Amino acid sequence: MSFNTFGRVFRFSTWGESHGPAIGAMVDGCPPGLALSEADIQPWLDLRKPGTSKFTTQRREPDEVRILSGVFEGKTTGTPISLMIENTDQRSKDYSEVAKAYRPGHADYTYDAKYGFRDYRGGGRSSARETASRVAAGAVARLVIPEVDIFAYVSEIGGDAIDYGNFDAAQIGQNPFFCPDAEAAVRWEALVDGARKDGSSLGAVVECVASGVPVGWGAPLYAKLDSELASAMMSINAVKGVEIGDGFAAARLRGEQNADPMRPGADGPVFLANHAGGIAGGISTGQPVKVRIAFKPTSSILIPVETVTREGDASDIITKGRHDPCVGIRGVPVVEAMMALVLADQKLLHRAQCGAD
Amino acid sequence: MSFNTFGRVFRFSTWGESHGPAIGAMVDGCPPGLALSEADIQPWLDLRKPGTSKFTTQRREPDEVRILSGVFEGKTTGTPISLMIENTDQRSKDYSEVAKAYRPGHADYTYDAKYGFRDYRGGGRSSARETASRVAAGAVARLVIPEVDIFAYVSEIGGDAIDYGNFDAAQIGQNPFFCPDAEAAVRWEALVDGARKDGSSLGAVVECVASGVPVGWGAPLYAKLDSELASAMMSINAVKGVEIGDGFAAARLRGEQNADPMRPGADGPVFLANHAGGIAGGISTGQPVKVRIAFKPTSSILIPVETVTREGDASDIITKGRHDPCVGIRGVPVVEAMMALVLADQKLLHRAQCGAD
Amino acid sequence: MSFNTFGRVFRFSTWGESHGPAIGAMVDGCPPGLALSEADIQPWLDLRKPGTSKFTTQRREPDEVRILSGVFEGKTTGTPISLMIENTDQRSKDYSEVAKAYRPGHADYTYDAKYGFRDYRGGGRSSARETASRVAAGAVARLVIPEVDIFAYVSEIGGDAIDYGNFDAAQIGQNPFFCPDAEAAVRWEALVDGARKDGSSLGAVVECVASGVPVGWGAPLYAKLDSELASAMMSINAVKGVEIGDGFAAARLRGEQNADPMRPGADGPVFLANHAGGIAGGISTGQPVKVRIAFKPTSSILIPVETVTREGDASDIITKGRHDPCVGIRGVPVVEAMMALVLADQKLLHRAQCGAD
Amino acid sequence: MSFNTFGRVFRFSTWGESHGPAIGAMVDGCPPGLALSEADIQPWLDLRKPGTSKFTTQRREPDEVRILSGVFEGKTTGTPISLMIENTDQRSKDYSEVAKAYRPGHADYTYDAKYGFRDYRGGGRSSARETASRVAAGAVARLVIPEVDIFAYVSEIGGDAIDYGNFDAAQIGQNPFFCPDAEAAVRWEALVDGARKDGSSLGAVVECVASGVPVGWGAPLYAKLDSELASAMMSINAVKGVEIGDGFAAARLRGEQNADPMRPGADGPVFLANHAGGIAGGISTGQPVKVRIAFKPTSSILIPVETVTREGDASDIITKGRHDPCVGIRGVPVVEAMMALVLADQKLLHRAQCGAD
Repeated sequence: MSFNTFGRVFRFSTWGESHGPAIGAMVDGCPPGLALSEADIQPWLDLRKPGTSKFTTQRREPDEVRILSGVFEGKTTGTPISLMIENTDQRSKDYSEVAKAYRPGHADYTYDAKYGFRDYRGGGRSSARETASRVAAGAVARLVIPEVDIFAYVSEIGGDAIDYGNFDAAQIGQNPFFCPDAEAAVRWEALVDGARKDGSSLGAVVECVASGVPVGWGAPLYAKLDSELASAMMSINAVKGVEIGDGFAAARLRGEQNADPMRPGADGPVFLANHAGGIAGGISTGQPVKVRIAFKPTSSILIPVETVTREGDASDIITKGRHDPCVGIRGVPVVEAMMALVLADQKLLHRAQCGAD
Repeated sequence: MSFNTFGRVFRFSTWGESHGPAIGAMVDGCPPGLALSEADIQPWLDLRKPGTSKFTTQRREPDEVRILSGVFEGKTTGTPISLMIENTDQRSKDYSEVAKAYRPGHADYTYDAKYGFRDYRGGGRSSARETASRVAAGAVARLVIPEVDIFAYVSEIGGDAIDYGNFDAAQIGQNPFFCPDAEAAVRWEALVDGARKDGSSLGAVVECVASGVPVGWGAPLYAKLDSELASAMMSINAVKGVEIGDGFAAARLRGEQNADPMRPGADGPVFLANHAGGIAGGISTGQPVKVRIAFKPTSSILIPVETVTREGDASDIITKGRHDPCVGIRGVPVVEAMMALVLADQKLLHRAQCGAD
Repeated sequence: MSFNTFGRVFRFSTWGESHGPAIGAMVDGCPPGLALSEADIQPWLDLRKPGTSKFTTQRREPDEVRILSGVFEGKTTGTPISLMIENTDQRSKDYSEVAKAYRPGHADYTYDAKYGFRDYRGGGRSSARETASRVAAGAVARLVIPEVDIFAYVSEIGGDAIDYGNFDAAQIGQNPFFCPDAEAAVRWEALVDGARKDGSSLGAVVECVASGVPVGWGAPLYAKLDSELASAMMSINAVKGVEIGDGFAAARLRGEQNADPMRPGADGPVFLANHAGGIAGGISTGQPVKVRIAFKPTSSILIPVETVTREGDASDIITKGRHDPCVGIRGVPVVEAMMALVLADQKLLHRAQCGAD
Repeated sequence: MSFNTFGRVFRFSTWGESHGPAIGAMVDGCPPGLALSEADIQPWLDLRKPGTSKFTTQRREPDEVRILSGVFEGKTTGTPISLMIENTDQRSKDYSEVAKAYRPGHADYTYDAKYGFRDYRGGGRSSARETASRVAAGAVARLVIPEVDIFAYVSEIGGDAIDYGNFDAAQIGQNPFFCPDAEAAVRWEALVDGARKDGSSLGAVVECVASGVPVGWGAPLYAKLDSELASAMMSINAVKGVEIGDGFAAARLRGEQNADPMRPGADGPVFLANHAGGIAGGISTGQPVKVRIAFKPTSSILIPVETVTREGDASDIITKGRHDPCVGIRGVPVVEAMMALVLADQKLLHRAQCGAD
């Protein structure tokens, strides 16, 4: 079944294919009276935009967003906000071969099997291009949670991890990798460029931190904050793993190591550690909310892979077209957007039930 | 906000606290005409039941399920199935200290902060006891997907992993750890017993495999099969990480390594690998669906941890009561249940949109 | 599809059949900290209880509600509230004939056709007995909206309407018909008793007024307050029509007659009329919210009706058992409950989006 | 709260204001493989289009729909279908007075009170212009239910009802009123024209019939087919009442009069009457589904009405601009669209649970 809506009271829906006339998002349930114009959204889209360096796809899309509804005299009205981004650089001819055979690791085979056919141009709906709609919606979500500061970065590419001793948040915007470790960024240039020249691709790990989230957002049990975040992050193309706080590392700890001890503080309890990633019992603790996300290497590579044609014959396939050698890099603004979208929803839900922010 | 319902068309809701009169689940949207009695549910509950070995909590609950509605003359009617399990072994006196101070890592502080107070007896709603309701609902879900075979096991406790060379599915039911590696099971006896005697606890990793899932279940984009599974698994108490297929390991591979090559087969394409864990583009590929789940060590330990009282004073807390030294072990039937619940929902959704199973 | 849940953030689900062991409701999303015990619910159930006069079914159910979860130390905890009412007076033997043939106007044929079979005992899930669960859930909803006063009454039975000139709210509790017109109540005694003796049944109109609803609850467009109320009321057994404010009478007015003129008042605008029934553009105006509901005569009558057996043969059927000669009468507490449930949900939704009650 | 989505598995969402750049709808959950182009949608929009006679608003909108996603090579792909209609004839200057004072009966006051301000141009989101999006979405829904034939007509304007003895479905398209009674159509010309010249407006009743609906669509209890229809119809602007089958007239019948007797037929049971309007127990009976809808007279009239300004001062208001003297007329295609949208959803839901159409 097609479910292209996410959220419970602050909800967004996305539509659009890679090579259709446009893609877009509809944001519903946004509080009224927030100042909003295209200028609040465009910078986030620009961060995700393709074609900005040789480490991302060479497809060149201006990705200019238009607000079609829900804003009047510069403020949100409380009615649905329709956002549209026109597709301009579509070279459908690149995809003729993809129409005939399945790219292993891609959605080609499963879409065909499920729906009977597929829009093969650039992956159609399964293209990472859809994530531009999320980034646009996420920019609106940020306005709902001004108390929260969200930042994400790449912590590992192709198995080469940053050194947390070198962590410098100011570095994140200074290199094409959203990398907080200047030394790693240098290494990654060669690494990613090598993969690109090989016609191969690399996986990556993205980490996202939201600070300023007050204690109390989230819920037992099926809308736990961690459960919502896991769903949100795993819905991003190419994501195969999600960790909250220490994640799998916590499975190797003992109870007394993993506990986040508490001490009295000026404004309520203070935690002496944050193994939990800012969430206990599905509800935010007031500490930074931390998520780690694994991106697989994209399946769109120039190295031949054994496959099968639509007619069922054996074939080899290489995926021409213009692709990201490491999709995790451009995943950073998308991860941030999903964090904002989840938190905006949870803030409003908390207000609904408990009567306060 | 409290959202205690999971699923889209095959939906279940749970209710109940650890020390209230009962816990239960309501299953809605179940197809009619399925043979169902308590005997179809009880064996799964017995697997999760506390008090079966010294490696699990010594609380002794018979966990007998009653079907209160939705079944007539031994068959499901298509109306809501109400399942109830009475709580019998409640020793509320054990929890007097917990009422006064927060157990770090537990939901005590966050519940208090969110709701203003909490049912402190045995964790109330945040108790792992809630998972019995899931196991009961999951037993109904299994009837909806007879074509699917689901099994889960513990692959790692306290950092000590199984050797996949020793993997023997027949072993899983032969030891108190749901462990498929007989040698690891021996080591874990000492490991878990040691932690128990220390008053400590251990984390664990659980793996779950669903074979027989046909190609085509799932959806782009916000009800992707992997997204639904991540949400389902992360909603289980103590879970901090979820991986689909190779998960974080995929982030260290190159595109050609991570691709699952395809070859023609007698009944459609055959895959030569399953890095993807049986899901591509959010839709099942026909290969086994594989999920890995990280359980943290429980916060309920006898080792003192620094904390804060409700009044805001510094204190140390130890959690008496009867607790699992490794909650991941009893998580195995819960993980299986969540897998069944997600797949049953996806099967019906696929039928809704595409007109076939 | 079976959807037994109503509401968006304050949600309730019901389960149970007329002749199963019990029926019940689960209320999810209730704010924490509200004082709640069985004593807050029981009086409303007693109003709906069968067997209180010769004008209602002679089935005798004590309809005692038990709270199984979600309340601790006398207050709601913010977690799901499970309510259960045991069925005690089940005479399944009365329904043997119903198993064989379809009662026209009843759900017998449609359930059989949809689900392949049905629980024929007392109508199973389609029995008006389900409405006891709604009344119990509605009692919880009332606690969420203490600013609102809800009352309903029967305004018409079998075409015999009250005289609004005789309207006296104090009369509603003084007769077995929830009738605000003492003279009509006298006439209805003979009318309903006559229908009962004939083995026939009568339709009725119920009106419900909620005063104290502040301006601003509701929403454009698909959760309009009137749309939610229409859905809620039409979901009650035997209801075939819903009007907001003047309803169908408004269709015979001209624009200037139907307008509700406004004038400045001490606490904001004052309306000089209320044709709209307290709702404009889907949002409450601050005037009393008014709904009218048409109940059909029950199909369970002792007068033979032409029908068809399950095997497809012609037959005549009379419905023995113990039935209400006018189901609309006992519909009054159900209508009130649904009004409370819709308004509680809308209050919380308004708070979510607009940050205030 | 803003909820601009309707449906459970076949869902549509609408966005857009009367005087923004565009309005639109997103249809999600549509089955794949259906032939769809703009030509399948445009004729239904043309029926609703303003400016076609002097009996409707003189606003002239071409209402040309564009499909932006979800269709590939002329067929639906199973992914979201984005539909956009640009607004072209916006004369915002007409609405200066409306910005200052509230039009009684309109959403002006309630929007301002709820959201703090409003888009006053042409009613913004509360404008009947939104219904064009529904008609577009409804055209897609019709493709999902080819077995169903839907038609609606006006049965009453300003209290002047058709004579069912004159009923001729072929007449519906022959006059500007969607009137099946040629004689009534003549009378209505004078009636509506008189109201228009008076600067007044008239209410209307619309009836809608869906034949070909098989037995079994719908559900107990909170997604009853009648409940869904009531919600759908009441969500249309200016609607104040909904009846299923005999509706309020059923409340004046006795049980034996209201029963729809059954007799064996060649293809299953045959009904000898249809008081129930094709729905029993919330589930379709196989007979035509019949709904009656009351439209109030529009509040936008040239006759002064007492009102209050935003500043709280007394004022009189007349609503200039270009308005329908009887909004019920153009409501006919909207009612049909909502019927199609509800039935498409119910068909897919029935298939999900019961495995067949």
